[in-house]
Amino acid sequence: MNFKIRAANKEDCKDISRMIMELAEFEKMTDQVKITCEELERDGFCQNPFFECLIAEVPEENKSREGFTTVGYALYFYIYSTWKGRSMHLEDLYVMPEYRGFGIGKSLLSTVAKVANESQCARLQLTVLEWNVPSRDFYAAKGARDLTVTEGWHLIRFDGKSLNDLACGTLKN
Amino acid sequence: MNFKIRAANKEDCKDISRMIMELAEFEKMTDQVKITCEELERDGFCQNPFFECLIAEVPEENKSREGFTTVGYALYFYIYSTWKGRSMHLEDLYVMPEYRGFGIGKSLLSTVAKVANESQCARLQLTVLEWNVPSRDFYAAKGARDLTVTEGWHLIRFDGKSLNDLACGTLKN
Repeated sequence: MNFKIRAANKEDCKDISRMIMELAEFEKMTDQVKITCEELERDGFCQNPFFECLIAEVPEENKSREGFTTVGYALYFYIYSTWKGRSMHLEDLYVMPEYRGFGIGKSLLSTVAKVANESQCARLQLTVLEWNVPSRDFYAAKGARDLTVTEGWHLIRFDGKSLNDLACGTLKN
Repeated sequence: MNFKIRAANKEDCKDISRMIMELAEFEKMTDQVKITCEELERDGFCQNPFFECLIAEVPEENKSREGFTTVGYALYFYIYSTWKGRSMHLEDLYVMPEYRGFGIGKSLLSTVAKVANESQCARLQLTVLEWNVPSRDFYAAKGARDLTVTEGWHLIRFDGKSLNDLACGTLKN
Protein backbone atom coordinates (compact mmCIF):
# COMPACT_ATOMS: atom_id res chain seq x y z
CA MET A 1 0.00 0.00 0.00
CA ASN A 2 1.37 3.36 -1.07
CA PHE A 3 0.89 6.09 1.53
CA LYS A 4 2.46 9.28 2.77
CA ILE A 5 2.71 10.93 6.18
CA ARG A 6 2.49 14.72 6.29
CA ALA A 7 1.70 17.52 8.75
CA ALA A 8 -2.01 18.27 9.02
CA ASN A 9 -3.37 21.62 7.94
CA LYS A 10 -6.58 23.42 8.82
CA GLU A 11 -8.43 21.84 5.89
CA ASP A 12 -7.82 18.37 7.38
CA CYS A 13 -9.93 19.10 10.47
CA LYS A 14 -13.06 17.61 8.93
CA ASP A 15 -11.24 14.32 8.32
CA ILE A 16 -9.59 14.43 11.76
CA SER A 17 -13.00 15.02 13.31
CA ARG A 18 -14.43 12.01 11.47
CA MET A 19 -11.55 9.76 12.55
CA ILE A 20 -11.73 10.96 16.19
CA MET A 21 -15.29 9.64 16.18
CA GLU A 22 -14.25 6.34 14.51
CA LEU A 23 -11.59 5.85 17.20
CA ALA A 24 -14.10 6.63 19.97
CA GLU A 25 -16.47 4.05 18.47
CA PHE A 26 -13.72 1.45 18.76
CA GLU A 27 -13.08 2.55 22.36
CA LYS A 28 -16.84 2.31 23.05
CA MET A 29 -16.96 5.89 24.31
CA THR A 30 -18.65 7.95 21.56
CA ASP A 31 -20.95 9.55 24.16
CA GLN A 32 -17.89 11.35 25.55
CA VAL A 33 -16.94 13.09 22.28
CA LYS A 34 -17.89 16.77 22.40
CA ILE A 35 -15.24 18.24 20.11
CA THR A 36 -16.25 20.05 16.92
CA CYS A 37 -14.40 20.58 13.67
CA GLU A 38 -14.38 24.34 14.44
CA GLU A 39 -12.70 23.79 17.82
CA LEU A 40 -10.00 21.67 16.20
CA GLU A 41 -9.40 24.41 13.62
CA ARG A 42 -9.25 27.09 16.32
CA ASP A 43 -7.05 25.19 18.81
CA GLY A 44 -4.68 23.42 16.40
CA PHE A 45 -4.06 26.07 13.82
CA CYS A 46 -3.57 29.28 15.79
CA GLN A 47 -0.37 31.07 16.77
CA ASN A 48 0.37 28.91 19.82
CA PRO A 49 -1.44 25.70 18.93
CA PHE A 50 -2.62 23.33 21.66
CA PHE A 51 -1.65 20.32 19.54
CA GLU A 52 0.06 19.19 16.35
CA CYS A 53 -1.19 16.49 14.02
CA LEU A 54 0.17 14.15 11.34
CA ILE A 55 -2.00 12.74 8.57
CA ALA A 56 -1.64 9.45 6.66
CA GLU A 57 -2.82 9.81 3.09
CA VAL A 58 -3.29 7.26 0.29
CA PRO A 59 -3.47 7.98 -3.46
CA GLU A 60 -6.88 8.51 -5.05
CA GLU A 61 -6.81 4.99 -6.57
CA ASN A 62 -6.62 3.50 -3.07
CA LYS A 63 -9.41 5.57 -1.58
CA SER A 64 -11.64 3.96 1.05
CA ARG A 65 -15.07 2.44 0.39
CA GLU A 66 -16.60 5.77 1.48
CA GLY A 67 -14.22 7.73 -0.75
CA PHE A 68 -11.68 8.94 1.83
CA THR A 69 -7.96 9.34 1.05
CA THR A 70 -7.08 10.55 4.57
CA VAL A 71 -6.92 7.22 6.37
CA GLY A 72 -5.04 7.79 9.63
CA TYR A 73 -3.75 10.43 12.01
CA ALA A 74 -1.51 11.00 15.00
CA LEU A 75 -2.33 13.91 17.29
CA TYR A 76 0.27 14.96 19.87
CA PHE A 77 1.44 17.89 22.01
CA TYR A 78 4.29 18.93 24.28
CA ILE A 79 4.20 18.16 27.98
CA TYR A 80 6.81 18.67 30.70
CA SER A 81 8.46 16.39 33.20
CA THR A 82 9.95 17.97 36.32
CA TRP A 83 12.42 15.09 36.32
CA LYS A 84 13.45 15.00 32.65
CA GLY A 85 12.20 18.24 31.06
CA ARG A 86 10.56 18.52 27.65
CA SER A 87 8.43 15.55 26.70
CA MET A 88 5.70 14.64 24.27
CA HIS A 89 2.27 13.14 24.68
CA LEU A 90 0.62 11.15 21.89
CA GLU A 91 -3.09 11.70 22.41
CA ASP A 92 -4.41 9.66 19.46
CA LEU A 93 -2.91 7.23 16.95
CA TYR A 94 -5.47 5.86 14.52
CA VAL A 95 -5.54 4.01 11.20
CA MET A 96 -8.85 3.13 9.51
CA PRO A 97 -9.53 -0.64 9.80
CA GLU A 98 -9.24 -1.37 6.06
CA TYR A 99 -5.76 0.23 5.97
CA ARG A 100 -4.25 -1.73 8.85
CA GLY A 101 -1.37 -4.14 8.35
CA PHE A 102 0.53 -1.94 5.88
CA GLY A 103 2.80 -0.21 8.41
CA ILE A 104 0.86 3.06 8.44
CA GLY A 105 0.47 3.12 12.24
CA LYS A 106 4.14 2.29 12.71
CA SER A 107 5.10 5.03 10.29
CA LEU A 108 2.90 7.61 12.05
CA LEU A 109 4.35 6.59 15.43
CA SER A 110 7.90 6.68 14.14
CA THR A 111 7.36 10.17 12.69
CA VAL A 112 5.98 11.43 16.02
CA ALA A 113 9.08 9.97 17.72
CA LYS A 114 11.30 11.80 15.20
CA VAL A 115 9.58 15.11 16.01
CA ALA A 116 10.01 14.34 19.74
CA ASN A 117 13.71 13.60 19.26
CA GLU A 118 14.27 16.73 17.20
CA SER A 119 12.52 18.81 19.87
CA GLN A 120 14.81 17.33 22.54
CA CYS A 121 11.96 15.51 24.24
CA ALA A 122 13.16 12.95 26.77
CA ARG A 123 9.93 10.96 26.68
CA LEU A 124 7.02 10.03 24.45
CA GLN A 125 3.96 9.07 26.47
CA LEU A 126 0.43 7.93 25.81
CA THR A 127 -2.46 6.20 27.57
CA VAL A 128 -4.18 3.02 26.48
CA LEU A 129 -7.22 1.14 27.77
CA GLU A 130 -6.51 -2.06 29.69
CA TRP A 131 -8.77 -4.23 27.49
CA ASN A 132 -7.20 -2.87 24.30
CA VAL A 133 -4.65 -5.68 24.13
CA PRO A 134 -3.76 -5.21 20.41
CA SER A 135 -2.67 -1.62 21.15
CA ARG A 136 -0.84 -2.57 24.33
CA ASP A 137 0.99 -5.30 22.41
CA PHE A 138 1.74 -2.89 19.53
CA TYR A 139 3.47 -0.41 21.88
CA ALA A 140 5.15 -3.09 24.00
CA ALA A 141 6.62 -4.70 20.86
CA LYS A 142 8.22 -1.35 20.08
CA GLY A 143 9.89 -1.13 23.47
CA ALA A 144 7.41 0.99 25.43
CA ARG A 145 6.98 0.42 29.15
CA ASP A 146 3.60 0.22 30.85
CA LEU A 147 4.16 2.50 33.84
CA THR A 148 0.84 1.64 35.43
CA VAL A 149 2.02 -1.98 35.66
CA THR A 150 5.71 -1.40 36.46
CA GLU A 151 5.56 1.66 38.73
CA GLY A 152 1.89 1.90 39.71
CA TRP A 153 0.97 5.24 38.12
CA HIS A 154 -2.76 6.01 38.12
CA LEU A 155 -4.51 8.64 36.00
CA ILE A 156 -6.70 11.01 38.03
CA ARG A 157 -9.22 13.48 36.62
CA PHE A 158 -11.35 16.42 37.73
CA ASP A 159 -14.02 17.54 35.29
CA GLY A 160 -17.55 18.95 35.24
CA LYS A 161 -18.84 19.59 38.75
CA SER A 162 -15.68 18.42 40.54
CA LEU A 163 -13.50 20.84 38.53
CA ASN A 164 -15.96 23.64 39.06
CA ASP A 165 -16.25 23.06 42.82
CA LEU A 166 -12.47 23.00 43.07
CA ALA A 167 -12.14 26.26 41.14
CA CYS A 168 -14.81 27.96 43.24
CA GLY A 169 -13.13 26.86 46.46
CA THR A 170 -16.45 25.57 47.80
CA LEU A 171 -15.05 22.27 49.03
CA LYS A 172 -15.12 21.54 52.74
CA ASN A 173 -12.21 19.10 52.93
CA MET B 1 -0.51 29.78 59.11
CA ASN B 2 -0.38 32.89 56.96
CA PHE B 3 0.58 32.16 53.34
CA LYS B 4 0.06 33.47 49.85
CA ILE B 5 -0.19 31.81 46.44
CA ARG B 6 1.37 33.65 43.50
CA ALA B 7 2.63 32.96 39.98
CA ALA B 8 6.26 31.81 39.90
CA ASN B 9 8.91 33.93 38.24
CA LYS B 10 12.34 33.06 36.89
CA GLU B 11 13.99 33.80 40.24
CA ASP B 12 11.92 31.04 41.88
CA CYS B 13 13.55 28.28 39.81
CA LYS B 14 16.17 27.56 42.47
CA ASP B 15 13.42 26.95 45.04
CA ILE B 16 11.31 24.95 42.54
CA SER B 17 14.37 22.84 41.75
CA ARG B 18 14.94 22.15 45.45
CA MET B 19 11.30 21.16 46.00
CA ILE B 20 11.23 18.93 42.88
CA MET B 21 14.03 16.96 44.54
CA GLU B 22 12.20 16.87 47.89
CA LEU B 23 9.08 15.50 46.15
CA ALA B 24 11.15 12.89 44.30
CA GLU B 25 12.68 11.83 47.61
CA PHE B 26 9.19 11.21 48.95
CA GLU B 27 8.34 9.27 45.77
CA LYS B 28 11.57 7.27 46.21
CA MET B 29 12.74 8.15 42.71
CA THR B 30 15.52 10.73 43.12
CA ASP B 31 17.73 8.78 40.71
CA GLN B 32 15.32 9.76 37.93
CA VAL B 33 15.66 13.52 38.43
CA LYS B 34 17.85 15.03 35.71
CA ILE B 35 16.36 18.52 35.49
CA THR B 36 18.51 21.56 36.25
CA CYS B 37 17.58 25.01 37.50
CA GLU B 38 18.78 26.42 34.14
CA GLU B 39 16.43 24.14 32.18
CA LEU B 40 13.48 25.24 34.31
CA GLU B 41 14.41 28.87 33.68
CA ARG B 42 14.73 28.27 29.94
CA ASP B 43 11.58 26.17 29.48
CA GLY B 44 9.21 27.91 31.88
CA PHE B 45 10.07 31.54 31.33
CA CYS B 46 10.41 31.89 27.57
CA GLN B 47 7.96 33.25 24.99
CA ASN B 48 5.97 30.02 24.65
CA PRO B 49 6.62 28.37 28.01
CA PHE B 50 6.35 24.59 28.35
CA PHE B 51 4.77 24.96 31.80
CA GLU B 52 3.37 27.42 34.32
CA CYS B 53 3.96 27.34 38.05
CA LEU B 54 2.37 28.65 41.24
CA ILE B 55 4.33 29.23 44.42
CA ALA B 56 3.18 29.08 48.05
CA GLU B 57 5.02 31.58 50.19
CA VAL B 58 5.06 32.23 53.94
CA PRO B 59 6.14 35.41 55.74
CA GLU B 60 9.76 35.69 56.94
CA GLU B 61 8.70 35.02 60.56
CA ASN B 62 7.34 31.60 59.52
CA LYS B 63 10.37 30.55 57.50
CA SER B 64 11.35 26.88 57.53
CA ARG B 65 14.07 25.34 59.71
CA GLU B 66 16.47 25.72 56.78
CA GLY B 67 15.40 29.33 56.21
CA PHE B 68 13.05 28.92 53.23
CA THR B 69 9.94 31.07 52.73
CA THR B 70 8.94 29.32 49.48
CA VAL B 71 7.26 26.23 50.91
CA GLY B 72 5.15 24.71 48.12
CA TYR B 73 4.49 24.74 44.40
CA ALA B 74 2.10 23.53 41.72
CA LEU B 75 3.49 23.03 38.22
CA TYR B 76 1.03 22.56 35.36
CA PHE B 77 0.62 22.89 31.59
CA TYR B 78 -2.02 22.72 28.88
CA ILE B 79 -2.90 19.43 27.21
CA TYR B 80 -5.59 18.56 24.67
CA SER B 81 -8.38 16.02 24.60
CA THR B 82 -9.73 15.01 21.19
CA TRP B 83 -13.03 14.36 22.97
CA LYS B 84 -13.32 17.52 25.11
CA GLY B 85 -10.73 19.99 23.80
CA ARG B 86 -8.52 22.18 25.99
CA SER B 87 -7.48 20.57 29.24
CA MET B 88 -4.86 20.96 31.91
CA HIS B 89 -2.33 18.60 33.46
CA LEU B 90 -1.04 19.12 36.98
CA GLU B 91 2.47 17.68 36.93
CA ASP B 92 3.47 18.37 40.54
CA LEU B 93 1.69 19.55 43.67
CA TYR B 94 3.96 19.78 46.69
CA VAL B 95 3.98 21.31 50.15
CA MET B 96 6.99 20.95 52.47
CA PRO B 97 6.19 18.49 55.30
CA GLU B 98 6.37 21.08 58.11
CA TYR B 99 3.75 23.23 56.30
CA ARG B 100 1.15 20.53 55.77
CA GLY B 101 -2.26 20.68 57.40
CA PHE B 102 -2.76 24.42 56.89
CA GLY B 103 -4.68 24.22 53.60
CA ILE B 104 -1.74 25.24 51.42
CA GLY B 105 -2.05 22.21 49.11
CA LYS B 106 -5.79 22.72 48.78
CA SER B 107 -5.25 26.38 48.01
CA LEU B 108 -2.62 25.60 45.34
CA LEU B 109 -4.92 22.99 43.79
CA SER B 110 -7.91 25.31 43.86
CA THR B 111 -5.89 28.08 42.18
CA VAL B 112 -4.78 25.68 39.42
CA ALA B 113 -8.45 24.73 38.92
CA LYS B 114 -9.35 28.43 38.67
CA VAL B 115 -6.74 28.93 35.94
CA ALA B 116 -8.10 25.83 34.16
CA ASN B 117 -11.66 27.14 34.36
CA GLU B 118 -10.67 30.60 33.13
CA SER B 119 -8.81 29.01 30.20
CA GLN B 120 -11.92 27.00 29.27
CA CYS B 121 -10.27 23.70 30.14
CA ALA B 122 -12.74 20.83 30.36
CA ARG B 123 -10.48 18.68 32.51
CA LEU B 124 -7.75 18.86 35.12
CA GLN B 125 -5.66 15.70 35.17
CA LEU B 126 -2.72 14.33 37.08
CA THR B 127 -1.02 11.03 37.84
CA VAL B 128 -0.38 9.56 41.26
CA LEU B 129 1.49 6.48 42.49
CA GLU B 130 -0.64 3.55 43.63
CA TRP B 131 1.04 3.27 47.05
CA ASN B 132 0.65 7.02 47.68
CA VAL B 133 -2.65 6.58 49.49
CA PRO B 134 -2.62 9.98 51.25
CA SER B 135 -2.46 11.73 47.85
CA ARG B 136 -5.07 9.44 46.29
CA ASP B 137 -7.38 10.12 49.24
CA PHE B 138 -6.69 13.87 49.02
CA TYR B 139 -7.80 14.01 45.36
CA ALA B 140 -10.69 11.58 45.82
CA ALA B 141 -12.05 13.65 48.72
CA LYS B 142 -12.16 16.62 46.34
CA GLY B 143 -14.21 14.72 43.77
CA ALA B 144 -11.53 13.45 41.38
CA ARG B 145 -12.03 10.14 39.62
CA ASP B 146 -9.30 7.50 39.33
CA LEU B 147 -9.54 6.63 35.64
CA THR B 148 -7.09 3.76 35.93
CA VAL B 149 -9.51 2.08 38.35
CA THR B 150 -12.82 3.10 36.75
CA GLU B 151 -12.00 2.93 33.03
CA GLY B 152 -8.73 0.99 32.90
CA TRP B 153 -6.41 3.65 31.47
CA HIS B 154 -2.72 2.71 31.56
CA LEU B 155 0.20 5.10 31.17
CA ILE B 156 2.71 4.02 28.49
CA ARG B 157 6.15 5.50 27.91
CA PHE B 158 8.96 5.45 25.37
CA ASP B 159 12.25 6.96 26.48
CA GLY B 160 15.98 6.49 26.05
CA LYS B 161 16.77 3.67 23.64
CA SER B 162 13.14 2.80 22.86
CA LEU B 163 12.38 6.41 21.85
CA ASN B 164 15.55 6.60 19.83
CA ASP B 165 14.92 3.31 18.01
CA LEU B 166 11.40 4.45 17.21
CA ALA B 167 12.62 7.78 15.85
CA CYS B 168 15.29 6.12 13.74
CA GLY B 169 12.77 3.65 12.31
CA THR B 170 15.12 0.76 13.05
CA LEU B 171 12.43 -1.43 14.59
CA LYS B 172 11.58 -4.69 12.87
CA ASN B 173 8.00 -5.08 14.12
